Amino acid sequence: MRIALIIIGDEILDGLREDENFRVAKKYLKNKGSLDLLIFVRDNLNELKRVLNFVKNSFDIVLTSGGLGLTPDDITLRAFSEAFNLPLAKNEKKLEIVKKNIERVNAIQYTNFIDELSEGLSGSTPIENPKGVAAGEKIKIENTTFYILPGVPKEFEAILKIILTDFTSNKRINKVEYEVDEKEARLIKVLREVEYNFNVKTASYPPIHEKEKLKIILYGNGWLKEAKDYFENTLKNAKIPFKEISPSHTS
Amino acid sequence: MRIALIIIGDEILDGLREDENFRVAKKYLKNKGSLDLLIFVRDNLNELKRVLNFVKNSFDIVLTSGGLGLTPDDITLRAFSEAFNLPLAKNEKKLEIVKKNIERVNAIQYTNFIDELSEGLSGSTPIENPKGVAAGEKIKIENTTFYILPGVPKEFEAILKIILTDFTSNKRINKVEYEVDEKEARLIKVLREVEYNFNVKTASYPPIHEKEKLKIILYGNGWLKEAKDYFENTLKNAKIPFKEISPSHTS
Repeated sequence: MRIALIIIGDEILDGLREDENFRVAKKYLKNKGSLDLLIFVRDNLNELKRVLNFVKNSFDIVLTSGGLGLTPDDITLRAFSEAFNLPLAKNEKKLEIVKKNIERVNAIQYTNFIDELSEGLSGSTPIENPKGVAAGEKIKIENTTFYILPGVPKEFEAILKIILTDFTSNKRINKVEYEVDEKEARLIKVLREVEYNFNVKTASYPPIHEKEKLKIILYGNGWLKEAKDYFENTLKNAKIPFKEISPSHTS
Repeated sequence: MRIALIIIGDEILDGLREDENFRVAKKYLKNKGSLDLLIFVRDNLNELKRVLNFVKNSFDIVLTSGGLGLTPDDITLRAFSEAFNLPLAKNEKKLEIVKKNIERVNAIQYTNFIDELSEGLSGSTPIENPKGVAAGEKIKIENTTFYILPGVPKEFEAILKIILTDFTSNKRINKVEYEVDEKEARLIKVLREVEYNFNVKTASYPPIHEKEKLKIILYGNGWLKEAKDYFENTLKNAKIPFKEISPSHTS
């Protein structure tokens, strides 16, 4: 299952605020599939429309975060509507959710805007928002299911918990992780041999802080057991210290 | 000047590592122009090629971070080469930089790979790397100038300092910022009026932590002075407490 996350809002790109929703998404999606792409985009209608078209059909699931409010910088539903030619119209289920939410949070100020808050993309399914007012939406466009969520982290998290049951769990790929006490440059050859001979993938993360060690990962559906043996033996023969840090190489 | 940043590497998306280069980029680009798009993409050749094609011609400057090493997961130059049909070939200036770097850091292990490290995109200009071995590259493709930088944060930062003089400074737009002690919902109308009547843009950031207040920004090249007066008077009349937190509304 391929997943993309789009976080909408000037505040992150301008450094006015640290993003929290990527962290939240990572936590909840951990066992569901890899997050394959993460995009931060401004509250800019045309930019967001371009991004939505870019991710459509390249991912099974796209989560968006932000821009569901009623201030002029909230442009997410309009962007979906224009990008995919879907009219916005009053949605009875959305109206129900919003009414209930307004009552729950005592948000008398929203009653003036209840008509707007109950507008949804034609063909979408509203999603409950247990922590705020605006409802989320789920809509399948060609091969991609979009989950349109509010950006306030506690609302984003609460809705993510609800929709998570929708996601099928990914088969975990086999993986071995190592810490290696050596410069990356001395491992280039063995990593290339591992990829070439055993049809597994390798990843190499050089330390960027003191105390960190080079991290090497072998993974995938090739001959991982044989790759592991070959990699470890090569390191031992070269007297390069290493430590396996993965719990095990089974799934 | 429109700028995009592409951060390449599985480690961020998998949560193995926190990104640092967005923070670094924000710091250095602050006075040069807004960062308009930020993309985190995996070490996946096809995904990266698609992303490169997506940003081409939509931004004046695109910075990429990561994937310039020699392990099999380093695929950035190959992605550029295939995405834009640019052959990779030995570059004499890159060779010079790399030789000097290897000497400087005493990286005897890299001498085996010096031929590969001196390969560059045809038509690119190599960029010094004062903190590491691999050189960066600058290449203009149609209307977009790409700066291809290594991902190790100290190298990314050091090169960013060098290339920053290339970037023309953006005219700063006029801006007034406020903290307002009220729910966002009660300001929807006045923000819409401000946008409609004075041709300025507004942004609204509800508090996400306790103690935070709603932040409102009015900005742009419309009648900002008049918009400011109108906004402040409306709040005063409604007895809504607010505080201007921008140093001033001039550029």
